[in-house]
Amino acid sequence: MDPLAEIDFTKGGGLVTAIAVDDESGDLLMVAHVNEESLRRTLETGEVHYWSRARGRLWRKGEESGFTQRLRSLWIDCDADVVVLRVEQRGGAACHTGRRSCFFRRLDGASWTVVGERVFDPDEVYRK
Amino acid sequence: MDPLAEIDFTKGGGLVTAIAVDDESGDLLMVAHVNEESLRRTLETGEVHYWSRARGRLWRKGEESGFTQRLRSLWIDCDADVVVLRVEQRGGAACHTGRRSCFFRRLDGASWTVVGERVFDPDEVYRK
Repeated sequence: MDPLAEIDFTKGGGLVTAIAVDDESGDLLMVAHVNEESLRRTLETGEVHYWSRARGRLWRKGEESGFTQRLRSLWIDCDADVVVLRVEQRGGAACHTGRRSCFFRRLDGASWTVVGERVFDPDEVYRK
Repeated sequence: MDPLAEIDFTKGGGLVTAIAVDDESGDLLMVAHVNEESLRRTLETGEVHYWSRARGRLWRKGEESGFTQRLRSLWIDCDADVVVLRVEQRGGAACHTGRRSCFFRRLDGASWTVVGERVFDPDEVYRK
């Protein structure tokens, strides 16, 4: 049986939430979406593919920046409507702001503190 | 300024995805949704509140099972449309199946392997 048939894509109109976790550190890197095709492509190639809602197309992570993600293992939750991709993050940064993780702001009292430092300069990496 | 004004609730019709992470181990526990009211209640009380889409109401995590979550820190991602709640998970289990994490199934070849062991028996905890 096709293991991807276990995943419930119906609630999200063909998409499920995908969470990328650094397989070495266990740190949460980013959250995006996948459809069945992007998951299939990810399993076939070992390179993580998401579905970009903004661009309406398959998106190989790092296709522009070079900071690709290699799949180490795939997990689903109890309701089978969220997947976790444990990955090897190339270049050490997943976030388009140049930081390792997209979760670099923590609430301290009444304001958000930037915690993560930049690994790369987005102006250099994303050339127009 | 109200720090919750930074969060973009518009894309999700008043809701954003909320990821609970065990603050001690860094392990991903569960994924749910929050609206502004549930986040405000969480910050005021220190006890994590989600918005239950199935029940259409505020849901204090553990209100039935007793396995509540104490907020340690709140994080937002670069797009401000996903929050991470780093929590102290009481009773050691977040999943309604009795497992520590909702992510207890890993793809091994063509099938899903159950990895997490049960911490509690759901039949005993959720009495009808």
